[in-house]
Amino acid sequence: MELLKDKITKEGRVLSDTVLKVDSFLNHQIDPLLMKEVGEEFANRFADQVITKVLTIESSGIAPATFLGLTIGAPVVFARKKKSLTLSDNLYTSQVYSFTKNETNDISVSKDYLKADDNVLIIDDFLANGEAVKGLLDIAEQAGAHVVGVGIVIEKGFQMGGKALREQGLRIESLANIKSLADGKVEFFD
Amino acid sequence: MELLKDKITKEGRVLSDTVLKVDSFLNHQIDPLLMKEVGEEFANRFADQVITKVLTIESSGIAPATFLGLTIGAPVVFARKKKSLTLSDNLYTSQVYSFTKNETNDISVSKDYLKADDNVLIIDDFLANGEAVKGLLDIAEQAGAHVVGVGIVIEKGFQMGGKALREQGLRIESLANIKSLADGKVEFFD
Repeated sequence: MELLKDKITKEGRVLSDTVLKVDSFLNHQIDPLLMKEVGEEFANRFADQVITKVLTIESSGIAPATFLGLTIGAPVVFARKKKSLTLSDNLYTSQVYSFTKNETNDISVSKDYLKADDNVLIIDDFLANGEAVKGLLDIAEQAGAHVVGVGIVIEKGFQMGGKALREQGLRIESLANIKSLADGKVEFFD
Repeated sequence: MELLKDKITKEGRVLSDTVLKVDSFLNHQIDPLLMKEVGEEFANRFADQVITKVLTIESSGIAPATFLGLTIGAPVVFARKKKSLTLSDNLYTSQVYSFTKNETNDISVSKDYLKADDNVLIIDDFLANGEAVKGLLDIAEQAGAHVVGVGIVIEKGFQMGGKALREQGLRIESLANIKSLADGKVEFFD
């Protein structure tokens, strides 16, 4: 997705060979028009699939997932990173280790909003080691739901998450796939 | 906003005289079309104001704030509830006590995305005791930004947050304002 890659090139800040900061449009400040186009691009990529539910994780997945949901007419469910007192124990839970934050979070989804007859598209902002996607897949599996694929805004293709998940037969569509962050520069796969 | 009030009446679950759960369309599962209409209604309510930035707090404020931002052509910034390793110490911070979760969170916004020349509209999903709004006002004040008002999806008008904030001269627009949750029923102010 050229528009997204241009934005990353212009505004992304390479903090190290593995860390890219895109807080100006995705992870802290949100560019609503770009997120709308990202959501619509996900809808295009998976236009051959029937999707009954979009599954993401708070917080940065919410904006692109919501525009996707609007485009295809499906509700969005965001997994919560810890239990809230207003969620009951009627939950699917999994664990996600974040390398960025160096912490493990319980993630949870209410059993009310994910069912065995759901066709689920998983959306997330970043794919690096694949930990968040694995947690969401685990939750979908607990629900007995069918996962049609995974849509990722920015994949760090030089890390191993995407490769391992694709080798399991999972369909992953990344709108920007980064080959390298070496020498402070963002290089994309073609 | 009648569409929102109908949705609350149909799908909201009254857990006690003070707790309303709207996880089916706002706080866990998101209804994208309703959120779009909520965002557009905020734009209508504040159509007389110049707004350069929408300020909200993760996670449930993000969807309505992003649709508002899309409608008025302004970026959205969501305050984070704790520091992330990819955010530097270039932060405005405040503290928010959550009665629902019985915990205090540090909230923070990068100094890069809120400036003294910003005209800020604050958006949140719920207004009860006003703690989250007070934290966001504190952050806007630290930035020297001008707050044009506050847009709330659901106000629990029987609690004191809205009253206290309005008495300080703050303009608050609530799309649904709840008078009572007594006897398991949702009653709105007119």
